[in-house]
Amino acid sequence: MARFTFDGCDTVELAKTYGTPLYVLSGRMIRENLRELRSVFLDRWPGSSAAYAGKALQTLDLLRILASEGMGLDAVSGGELYAASRAGFPMERVLFHGNNKSGAELRLALELGVGRVVVDNPDEMALLDAIAGESGRRVPVLARVTPGVDSHTHRHISTGQLDSKFGMGLRPDARDGWLGALASSRWLEPRGFHFHVGSQISGPGSHRMALEATVGLMAHAGDAFGLETRELNMGGGFGVRYTEADAPAALGDFTDALMGDLHRLCGDAGLPVPAVTIEPGRWLVAAAGITLYTVGSRKEIPGVRSYVSVDGGMTDNPRPALYDARYEATVADRHDSPRDRVVTVAGKCCESGDILIRDIALQDPRPGDTLAVLVTGAYNHSMASTYNRTPRPAMVLTDSGRHRLSVRRETWEDLLSREL
Amino acid sequence: MARFTFDGCDTVELAKTYGTPLYVLSGRMIRENLRELRSVFLDRWPGSSAAYAGKALQTLDLLRILASEGMGLDAVSGGELYAASRAGFPMERVLFHGNNKSGAELRLALELGVGRVVVDNPDEMALLDAIAGESGRRVPVLARVTPGVDSHTHRHISTGQLDSKFGMGLRPDARDGWLGALASSRWLEPRGFHFHVGSQISGPGSHRMALEATVGLMAHAGDAFGLETRELNMGGGFGVRYTEADAPAALGDFTDALMGDLHRLCGDAGLPVPAVTIEPGRWLVAAAGITLYTVGSRKEIPGVRSYVSVDGGMTDNPRPALYDARYEATVADRHDSPRDRVVTVAGKCCESGDILIRDIALQDPRPGDTLAVLVTGAYNHSMASTYNRTPRPAMVLTDSGRHRLSVRRETWEDLLSREL
Repeated sequence: MARFTFDGCDTVELAKTYGTPLYVLSGRMIRENLRELRSVFLDRWPGSSAAYAGKALQTLDLLRILASEGMGLDAVSGGELYAASRAGFPMERVLFHGNNKSGAELRLALELGVGRVVVDNPDEMALLDAIAGESGRRVPVLARVTPGVDSHTHRHISTGQLDSKFGMGLRPDARDGWLGALASSRWLEPRGFHFHVGSQISGPGSHRMALEATVGLMAHAGDAFGLETRELNMGGGFGVRYTEADAPAALGDFTDALMGDLHRLCGDAGLPVPAVTIEPGRWLVAAAGITLYTVGSRKEIPGVRSYVSVDGGMTDNPRPALYDARYEATVADRHDSPRDRVVTVAGKCCESGDILIRDIALQDPRPGDTLAVLVTGAYNHSMASTYNRTPRPAMVLTDSGRHRLSVRRETWEDLLSREL
Repeated sequence: MARFTFDGCDTVELAKTYGTPLYVLSGRMIRENLRELRSVFLDRWPGSSAAYAGKALQTLDLLRILASEGMGLDAVSGGELYAASRAGFPMERVLFHGNNKSGAELRLALELGVGRVVVDNPDEMALLDAIAGESGRRVPVLARVTPGVDSHTHRHISTGQLDSKFGMGLRPDARDGWLGALASSRWLEPRGFHFHVGSQISGPGSHRMALEATVGLMAHAGDAFGLETRELNMGGGFGVRYTEADAPAALGDFTDALMGDLHRLCGDAGLPVPAVTIEPGRWLVAAAGITLYTVGSRKEIPGVRSYVSVDGGMTDNPRPALYDARYEATVADRHDSPRDRVVTVAGKCCESGDILIRDIALQDPRPGDTLAVLVTGAYNHSMASTYNRTPRPAMVLTDSGRHRLSVRRETWEDLLSREL
């Protein structure tokens, strides 16, 4: 019986060594993804850059890998900026995002010298202008726009296109107000625009529509306000394969289509082609991570369903409860055995919604087995909670058969550390 | 202009003093709810008891209040047991629940001397029997049953009734196996049964159906296995009023109906009436808690929607994202002003799903205002995450105009404490 190995590591041994639940992150697979990113995008398009969207997963170890590989970083909070700074990340490669940055967060961003603030709305522009004025230094900014594209239908929708808490509208009745404020601000230095069309997107269609709308804005911003677009940030959203039901386009298919469009659209409009940034998050880390659990109680309800409980659940992976997200898994102890039992993998939270995977064919899981859930590198550790006073898992970083602790397991005592 | 006061405290002053986002919990209102619990249930029914379901909210301060008021506690994890022990909670008043208790958790429960282990399934019975055998002491247990009631429809449903990760089935083909194992176990001391029909239930209908099924089981357990039911735990699920759309029955309406049924059913079956426990969680704490936020950026999308962002969101209150939960709120600075602006209250997470309240009429919120979201005492602090590296809020405990810090605010440095 063959065990399940991941990045050259025996996962049953990892579970024994570090305990469960356990996040396992492969540094090697992340570096491989970075090689693909360079090969299909960065090396092909002069002036292009990529900023990793840290909300997917942000640990000090990961930040150090990304810094050493020359990546940029997309940070969305004071906490993410602080962590980047503590990891020694080059702050000039950091973009600061968010729909409601506080004054304290904006001040921190300026103190740390982040490369770009992505201003989200006119209230924030005014706040940042005032804060930058205090220091007497101009702040390079990108303006986040709401491109009006529904990423799931790939259509412009009359209201849905504009109904977002993020960014500023492109409709003629909306855009001139904020473009004028941007152009006339004293302490903001407009470099260009940013858009983001959604998450876990399977092909470039919605990005292309957003790009077309944004190039239209670029032309108008130049003509009407003298705003030159030197940089264009197309966000992220590049999908990954969680299960066989997912068939996302390769990253190069997204970027080839977008860069081709961009050159054509800018040519048609007589605009210089701006330097392009993309922001892969999930794409970089999702498949580089797995979660190991120990199987506990089973429950056979004849004619209804078979439950198998594990020692984690919605606390370490809230995505099934939040988004009906679907995952693949394997019994690590008997990876090559027939998958002849259909079971529902339940978490241990006292909540009926704490179900990790409904009706998956597995290798007859038994108490004590190690269950590996795949493609958990993104939005698992970063979204974890301590519901039911459940300590958050440790994370191990692997590299071709080697492994070491990266984030230590939370303790019951840790869970009381803020109580007086 | 009148400000919003809560438990005699000016909430705008609380926000200034402690910062936002801020959980505010009224000890006075919890004690008032406990008085109602005693008056309508505990004082009326000899032998009855109540165990607070700590998964709703479990802080050391709250545990100390409950201990001093004579309450029991429903704990669902090693972490909750550990915290109860650290708060000095009388462990003989603790029940230990869960669909997948680990060996380590069961050992801790026995070491701490919890009053009852609520065994969930045959795998766990065998595990607990073995662990109890090591210490040579019998463990008083309740057996959790799946009563086969759908709490939302108040109907028995052919499969849904049994399709739960919790508890053991009552169907003739299922029950005799586990009843036999329970009766013949060497180290388990069966005291009775436990059922739980669901959460946020508006009336006693589903509890009554579950009770009827469970009394049937009690009769069968006595006749066929000599198992006497001395205790019956009817769980919780008693609804609260989040908004005007909720009209839950009073606690006494639930308990009067259930106790009336129990006496009648036991009389009909010739069974002695067992000692009854209920497990209110949300009912005790939800309305005793509010969350204070500071209003930040606004976004007016003409003809579409108005967004108002606050400095918290799905990290401190995941219930809207998880369950489409609906909340009431007020602009604390102008509590008595007309609610003449319909806005959508957005959180600050970089996630389009981070919306706290859709389309609520408010008093024209402006940047810097304090927004109070009501009835957040349950399943907010306990379910909070640090997504986007967002520090978790502080909690203040109030008592008729007095206030003090109960849980300190998380820091950016705290968020790095487990990283190596």
